[in-house]
Amino acid sequence: MHPLAQRILAGDRRAVARALTVIENDAQDKRQLLQDLHPHAGRAHIIGFTGAPGAGKSTLVDQMIAHLRGQNLTVGVLAVDPSSPFTGGALLGDRVRMTRHSADAGVFIRSMGSRGSLGGLAAASREMLVALEAYGCDVVLLETVGVGQAELDVMSVADTVALVLTPGAGDHVQTAKAGIMEIADVFIVNKRELPGSEALVREVRLMVHERSHHREDWEPPVVAVSAIENAGIAELWNAISAHAAHLRSSGFWESRRRSRHRADTEQVLLAAFRAYVRGRASADAAWRVALDDPAADPYTAAAELLRGLPFDAAFDALFNRALAPRSP
Amino acid sequence: MHPLAQRILAGDRRAVARALTVIENDAQDKRQLLQDLHPHAGRAHIIGFTGAPGAGKSTLVDQMIAHLRGQNLTVGVLAVDPSSPFTGGALLGDRVRMTRHSADAGVFIRSMGSRGSLGGLAAASREMLVALEAYGCDVVLLETVGVGQAELDVMSVADTVALVLTPGAGDHVQTAKAGIMEIADVFIVNKRELPGSEALVREVRLMVHERSHHREDWEPPVVAVSAIENAGIAELWNAISAHAAHLRSSGFWESRRRSRHRADTEQVLLAAFRAYVRGRASADAAWRVALDDPAADPYTAAAELLRGLPFDAAFDALFNRALAPRSP
Repeated sequence: MHPLAQRILAGDRRAVARALTVIENDAQDKRQLLQDLHPHAGRAHIIGFTGAPGAGKSTLVDQMIAHLRGQNLTVGVLAVDPSSPFTGGALLGDRVRMTRHSADAGVFIRSMGSRGSLGGLAAASREMLVALEAYGCDVVLLETVGVGQAELDVMSVADTVALVLTPGAGDHVQTAKAGIMEIADVFIVNKRELPGSEALVREVRLMVHERSHHREDWEPPVVAVSAIENAGIAELWNAISAHAAHLRSSGFWESRRRSRHRADTEQVLLAAFRAYVRGRASADAAWRVALDDPAADPYTAAAELLRGLPFDAAFDALFNRALAPRSP
Repeated sequence: MHPLAQRILAGDRRAVARALTVIENDAQDKRQLLQDLHPHAGRAHIIGFTGAPGAGKSTLVDQMIAHLRGQNLTVGVLAVDPSSPFTGGALLGDRVRMTRHSADAGVFIRSMGSRGSLGGLAAASREMLVALEAYGCDVVLLETVGVGQAELDVMSVADTVALVLTPGAGDHVQTAKAGIMEIADVFIVNKRELPGSEALVREVRLMVHERSHHREDWEPPVVAVSAIENAGIAELWNAISAHAAHLRSSGFWESRRRSRHRADTEQVLLAAFRAYVRGRASADAAWRVALDDPAADPYTAAAELLRGLPFDAAFDALFNRALAPRSP
């Protein structure tokens, strides 16, 4: 067994930090580490918090940590910032939180900047969750900022997606509408002490209510909180817990985990195939030429290379459909 | 030949718009369209403009269009916003530009929101460039906002990467440093009418000068402009043209195109392999179980599936290295 896996299972918090670095750096021993941790993972409730910058996500997550610790639940926090290319020490306000919770072995906080494009943030997040779950986290709070596709990718890792809105951010509901509104399981109206919060709650409730179809038969609740005044946090936790209970009783909890496993395995298969392509390009002149000669368009070049691969005939058709080949 | 390809080659601007929609939607006939356009593409100078929101990129690109049109060059503009999940009508200020240039057949402007993660923005941008180049654009201005990895991906498509900085944005050089500073071929200090612009120019020049190594033997120039006052645009175009001349005379122009072709072809191969995996999963129970059963970790599941694929033995080792398999 990987020595870090052993230490993590024994509750060594510093080993978790080192394991996350192994994962983030895609180190040689990552696979063994993940294999050893895998049997001990998969049980935590993963809660995604997303929303525009300034919506108060960091303060809210901080209050959630305190609330969950009060219930004796162990908490992992993974703050993912797709707009920052590299890991910084102070992403999404985690410095403050780290100081407050640094003496508490029941809290583990980590932040991550953006990474390569194949697999990328979502895959890295899932692998980090394995380490946090194996450490024994009952709940993992996954925090990200709202920046388009990357936000949706990261949120695909969560069991419960919580979208943080704020009154007065005028066009906010409009802005967030594309993509993320559709996958939110819980709507949070933060800064409820500000004017306009009741109107925003009504607006979002109406929007949710008017939907003809609710994903996974769940009508997302709208909860008004004030992170800064530490108000409404218990109600929010109740709403999030109710969503988890709904997922479990309806079978969607398991089906979400299955589809995440499929996405992860696909990602590994693709990485392996990419390594094959690159290895073959460096060892085989015909491949090198096809890959490097811009005279052919990429589809024609790819189709030619694939013709040389010994895939079973039954599945040649699948390749061909993927390439939508043009008859010569 | 695809009818749209025929019309594009005949200079029909509306056909370009329709072709870009075919590409963006990944429509059935996309491959044929790209194959027909490919022989007529690859000659334009692709110039990427990136920088923080508010740096004045849209105004600058607008002045560049006017300057290039004054030189009788045809111009394509592709505005890519990775922070917006879907295409909007008014991304990055293109509405204004569209109105100003709508009567000019020598200008084509299009904007695009973010897309799926495999291939994603960079691949879609490259395919769109093929259509713009085949239409006859001498120069394509590729505009994006600075949001981490997506920004770097999009800029990998450009021949010349221009980073737009502004005085007074205090921490801006620091913020932009990670990743994008290293790949900028031209630094632009916009809003040179503002206080602090000379200091910023000196700061960036010093930073560039102190580098021990310059990528592709090119020391990036620092050009101060005022997009809003239309000042310094000719000098900027000279600096960008000098970079293109350097790339051509040094051979890097060709090598950049080769590596882009390789990235594109790899992307097509990966998409085909992914289709294979998905097709096989729906036709083959063993694959479905391995892909959907979270009991095994993704690396073990993937390794098992790969063992069943008829790749040549010589390259099994490559798969294995990619998976870094643990001996059982």
